[in-house]
Amino acid sequence: MKSSEIKSQFRDLQRLICAQLALWDGQASFHEDKWDRVDGGGGFTSTIGNGRIIEKGGVAFSAVEGEVTKLMKDQLNLEGNHFFATGVSIVLHPKHPRHPIIHMNIRYFEIDEETYWFGGGIDLTPHYINDYLAAVFHQRLKSICDKYDPGFYLKCKNWADDYFFLPHRNETRGVGGIFFDHITGNNSQSKHDIFVLCMELGTAFPSIYQEQVDSVSFTDITPQEKLWQNIRRSRYVEFNLLHDRGTKFGIYSQGRTESILMSMPPEANWIYNHLPTENSEEELTLKKLIKGKSWL
Amino acid sequence: MKSSEIKSQFRDLQRLICAQLALWDGQASFHEDKWDRVDGGGGFTSTIGNGRIIEKGGVAFSAVEGEVTKLMKDQLNLEGNHFFATGVSIVLHPKHPRHPIIHMNIRYFEIDEETYWFGGGIDLTPHYINDYLAAVFHQRLKSICDKYDPGFYLKCKNWADDYFFLPHRNETRGVGGIFFDHITGNNSQSKHDIFVLCMELGTAFPSIYQEQVDSVSFTDITPQEKLWQNIRRSRYVEFNLLHDRGTKFGIYSQGRTESILMSMPPEANWIYNHLPTENSEEELTLKKLIKGKSWL
Repeated sequence: MKSSEIKSQFRDLQRLICAQLALWDGQASFHEDKWDRVDGGGGFTSTIGNGRIIEKGGVAFSAVEGEVTKLMKDQLNLEGNHFFATGVSIVLHPKHPRHPIIHMNIRYFEIDEETYWFGGGIDLTPHYINDYLAAVFHQRLKSICDKYDPGFYLKCKNWADDYFFLPHRNETRGVGGIFFDHITGNNSQSKHDIFVLCMELGTAFPSIYQEQVDSVSFTDITPQEKLWQNIRRSRYVEFNLLHDRGTKFGIYSQGRTESILMSMPPEANWIYNHLPTENSEEELTLKKLIKGKSWL
Repeated sequence: MKSSEIKSQFRDLQRLICAQLALWDGQASFHEDKWDRVDGGGGFTSTIGNGRIIEKGGVAFSAVEGEVTKLMKDQLNLEGNHFFATGVSIVLHPKHPRHPIIHMNIRYFEIDEETYWFGGGIDLTPHYINDYLAAVFHQRLKSICDKYDPGFYLKCKNWADDYFFLPHRNETRGVGGIFFDHITGNNSQSKHDIFVLCMELGTAFPSIYQEQVDSVSFTDITPQEKLWQNIRRSRYVEFNLLHDRGTKFGIYSQGRTESILMSMPPEANWIYNHLPTENSEEELTLKKLIKGKSWL
């Protein structure tokens, strides 16, 4: 499987996801920006705003290549001189506090024909956790992973618990999902199998998110819900700017800032030492943001 | 000069600043939280909110000590086994977009009697830059620095330009100010001289900020001003979480998260690819956020 083919299918996937999300949202559509990377490659960043569902979101495709710099060697432990990287990244911030934030990423990295890997993940960040919908979400991911390898879901679920974690808050970002990196295939799985897994995650993405949103009715938003949403969004900001490897690498390797930070929420609030009311829904959500919880 | 004396004077300074700011604000007062660090020391975090002037602010004192961990060695380039650190940090986010955000920090770090240093800085982040008030601000800092060493202001002004800079935005955080670190004294300045400089900056802080605010009348806030304030605040968040060493030190030395992140604004907005209107006041401010500008 050639890198050019992976790149072209990733780009097609981005278009498909944007088309499906826009059709579903019904109110807003995507705007696409093309950008070029000085040292090789570039991308297309599609963003959407002020929709029926999505208040602010982006679906980004990029395919970059060039020399492996010292920074990349240090940050990514890379060997070799030339690299190629392509991927699709999505973050959607819904308007309604009862709808969850969602993130997806699939990526392919290549040094040469022998040295390559895939990575990816989907994770869900509800402002208010609904156990049933968290289970539905994890079940969808498990079904896709099981076709690839029966042990893959659990491995990647635990990986997501470790990755999407805010040590300074001692809380997970949300109900997790799956995360994987440096997957190169083994005796039973070929390069094409991993690629198929990534594409299946990508093509399933719109329906996975629609299922989460369409199951929750559009109640009138209370000031308490809105404030809580904005506090949870501030934790999302903290994770992405303090801990997320993709964001850090993008920033330090002088990627396109607006494409990297399309993941930021439209609005966020910080309140000093905010503690939710005892036994409130907000407190209940906080208590569930722990590693190692089985949602299924 | 013993570390215990520095610590006790820093704590007194915190009390003085809080008292002066509260008296001036007139509407809100400070609330003090005491916290203990598991591995040694702790602090007092004083916060204020919903004031006449200050929407959200904090004046934090801490004095922590303990073992230099591997994480601190790696992330902070420290040598030695035991450390002591004490400091006062202030961030004030004003309600009115025509008033500037201000930050001050003075700190003392000690490994042993021979190995110690002071650091500090004050910088101003106007949402809308007023050249005259920026000059007034820098003049106040210069007057204080000149008493210590005639070359100190310019050295620290340039240091601030380099430090309070967002490379991913290619803009300074605001109109800068002064920044210094690892100041250990030399032939002409004693340890006590540096300490006096830090205390003079601290005691001048309330009047420096009052001068900035009291010179601007309380016009009705327009939606455009409010939005611009929240966009500038998002850049403040980006700086503190991506670049600020103090924030990193706090996070990596397992300090108290709410005290470290008291610097966060009450609210922030991110708009994908936001560009101010041509020739607007907002664009004019953006154009002035450059390194090496002489404000005097």
